[in-house]
Amino acid sequence: MSKPLSVEVINFGDELLVGIRQNTHLTYIGEQLSQYGVPICRCQVIRDEAVEIRRAFREAWERSDLVITTGGLGPTSDDMTRETVAEALGVDLVFESEVELTIKDRLSVLGRSLAPHHAKQCFRFQGGECFHNERGTAPGLILAAAGKTLVMLPGPTHELKPMFENYVLPRLQREGLIGEDEAYVQVRTCGLGESSVEQLLKPLMAEHDALDVAFCVHYSMVDVRLSCRDGSICMQQLKVIAQEARHLLGDDFVCFGHCSLARVVYHELRALDRKLAIAESCTGGALSSEFTDVPGASEVFVGGIVCYTNDVKVTQLGVPESILEQHGAVSPECAIAMASGAAERMCSDYGLSVTGFAGPDGGNSSHPVGTIHFGYHSPVGVWCKSVRYTGGRLDVKARAVQTALDWMRRKLRKYKMEEFLSSEAEH
Amino acid sequence: MSKPLSVEVINFGDELLVGIRQNTHLTYIGEQLSQYGVPICRCQVIRDEAVEIRRAFREAWERSDLVITTGGLGPTSDDMTRETVAEALGVDLVFESEVELTIKDRLSVLGRSLAPHHAKQCFRFQGGECFHNERGTAPGLILAAAGKTLVMLPGPTHELKPMFENYVLPRLQREGLIGEDEAYVQVRTCGLGESSVEQLLKPLMAEHDALDVAFCVHYSMVDVRLSCRDGSICMQQLKVIAQEARHLLGDDFVCFGHCSLARVVYHELRALDRKLAIAESCTGGALSSEFTDVPGASEVFVGGIVCYTNDVKVTQLGVPESILEQHGAVSPECAIAMASGAAERMCSDYGLSVTGFAGPDGGNSSHPVGTIHFGYHSPVGVWCKSVRYTGGRLDVKARAVQTALDWMRRKLRKYKMEEFLSSEAEH
Repeated sequence: MSKPLSVEVINFGDELLVGIRQNTHLTYIGEQLSQYGVPICRCQVIRDEAVEIRRAFREAWERSDLVITTGGLGPTSDDMTRETVAEALGVDLVFESEVELTIKDRLSVLGRSLAPHHAKQCFRFQGGECFHNERGTAPGLILAAAGKTLVMLPGPTHELKPMFENYVLPRLQREGLIGEDEAYVQVRTCGLGESSVEQLLKPLMAEHDALDVAFCVHYSMVDVRLSCRDGSICMQQLKVIAQEARHLLGDDFVCFGHCSLARVVYHELRALDRKLAIAESCTGGALSSEFTDVPGASEVFVGGIVCYTNDVKVTQLGVPESILEQHGAVSPECAIAMASGAAERMCSDYGLSVTGFAGPDGGNSSHPVGTIHFGYHSPVGVWCKSVRYTGGRLDVKARAVQTALDWMRRKLRKYKMEEFLSSEAEH
Repeated sequence: MSKPLSVEVINFGDELLVGIRQNTHLTYIGEQLSQYGVPICRCQVIRDEAVEIRRAFREAWERSDLVITTGGLGPTSDDMTRETVAEALGVDLVFESEVELTIKDRLSVLGRSLAPHHAKQCFRFQGGECFHNERGTAPGLILAAAGKTLVMLPGPTHELKPMFENYVLPRLQREGLIGEDEAYVQVRTCGLGESSVEQLLKPLMAEHDALDVAFCVHYSMVDVRLSCRDGSICMQQLKVIAQEARHLLGDDFVCFGHCSLARVVYHELRALDRKLAIAESCTGGALSSEFTDVPGASEVFVGGIVCYTNDVKVTQLGVPESILEQHGAVSPECAIAMASGAAERMCSDYGLSVTGFAGPDGGNSSHPVGTIHFGYHSPVGVWCKSVRYTGGRLDVKARAVQTALDWMRRKLRKYKMEEFLSSEAEH
């Protein structure tokens, strides 16, 4: 096997270092490249200052085969990246009149004309080329020199992504820098901690010396990515190992790949040809929103009620006032009434509900802040479940959404045959 | 003024480089430190490999005064950071029995006992100290040596944040490494592009040579952060300049600081002592969720209906079937009926609605994918507004949420006196 490509990313932008903006570019490019078997080796995040840009670029260019930069190509006065990198490379910038025409066209559609600050966006490296920007003015840049490749991408996400997928990836594949096929198998789990997952998978790791196993925890989920850097385990074998991992994980196995819990639930419901309605208080719409992030959600999701007051619980969901009086809005009883109410009022087969105190205020001695009750209404039965989280308001919201979806996923799988028969009987 | 502190962050973790996880730690630490006038100078994101850890740490330690690392302190087999850094520093690791006791206590509450893989978490640098971990087993580490300071933090966000705020920040302030007071003013705008905002603020930048101005675009918002690195403009003067910026920006000024659009709307409604209900289709709960992210949202928000089918629009919101038949669910007429329906059905003063095609499917010749209609019901009138976005499903959802909130913010400010009088008349 040939020496693996050494890839380095440099993200330019003060805003990434002072907490104004998340570095989503690194995540995005990392995901795209590792899908084709080329992990990013390292990343630098750098200020928009000539001396820093020069140092960072020189280091990267010295030690890496492929350098990808993001940001610093825009029209505002703090963007000087193109010029500084050209200087560090010892390469001239040349005016590209075609780019000027493209920018003029783009601006004229928006009813604007070319401003002086657009002029510097029309330059490319001598001997290099431009990538077309479908969504903005600054083109991307590419230069191959001394057996190395430099790719420079604009900062705005909605400009960077289409440019990367439509022009950069195919170009890198064409030049043989990255592969054409996927290179790892991801096993998604939910319900176990990182070290418990590792314990469960120990036999696999012992059996396959060359297997690379990486873990990532996000809320209640742990992703396990199986790959083989030295190439001695092929994709087909990785898939067999992933199946063994699935077996070892039991009910805590969610899926292969990147499916969200919402998407897994969506697929189960589609297979049953059933509908879902949601009722939520403390998650405030986040559960419905997570579900409707799934393309095609409308095939199974009919609607959701965000009930932030008792009145709305009564009028929109038909929660009995007696339950609210006796048990309160944050109770297992209310959760079940909400789930059944959502299903009945919106004519769906399933109802899923969340009620609780997300904080920072609210709560009482028997149900402190972080107490969350879930309700589940299905053709084969009604259940409730209660948990308590520590953490801030947004944490509690996010965790409650994940728990609700994971709970429904388990219920759907556990009662699969019953639900299927119940579905068959009615349709 | 003394030489500014040079701060470098190193984030350890393969998962950050292969697209499994966002590097939220950099954003968080950057925001925290820059609040006190100490921007991060640079950041490296590094693989969990001894050779990379050693190189990155040595470079950072050589050129920076304060090095903060995240990740690599956990119990799984790919965490070797503590050991490699100790070796690079030439400092021994010493066993800290107090940490072992704390971990034992923590685990016993969870009904678990100390496993061998926890042992390495009980070590600190010779001459250094530990930071208590309130939410996990791995303690943080600090070492002061050769006039420099090293801080090592655990990777999980819910462990890192309380440790940073409760122990690390106060410690750095006590040692005089960072200031006690805030150091910049952020001016948040909505509705203009980055270069238009810069054009508007040109006079201020021309007048104040030493003023540092950084821009950040997120969806429809542009944040402008005003600071002065050389210290020649004091905080009081920065606030005066920020007021001038506000004046220049007019209606496109949202707030000083980090308030979300939802929070600005929340404050306006609270001042009026009025209630809001939401009805949404294509945003699928995201608008309600954004609003309920605001702590105390329940003081003004009564509820939301996510209506993904025509039936739900009719039964839960009272949208007339004739409107759905004549104009369809994605129409200005339906948007208004949804806004008024939400307000009336849930007994609130204001109703805000969104209906449209988020994609990837749906849409027709007169209303293609990305077409969104908004409805606004208020005590002083009813309005609608239509826009069209390009981009994917999640982009369209996020943009529609921001547009709805910004539109409501502008309406509330424009009709402030009328709405106030209407509110006074009724209360």
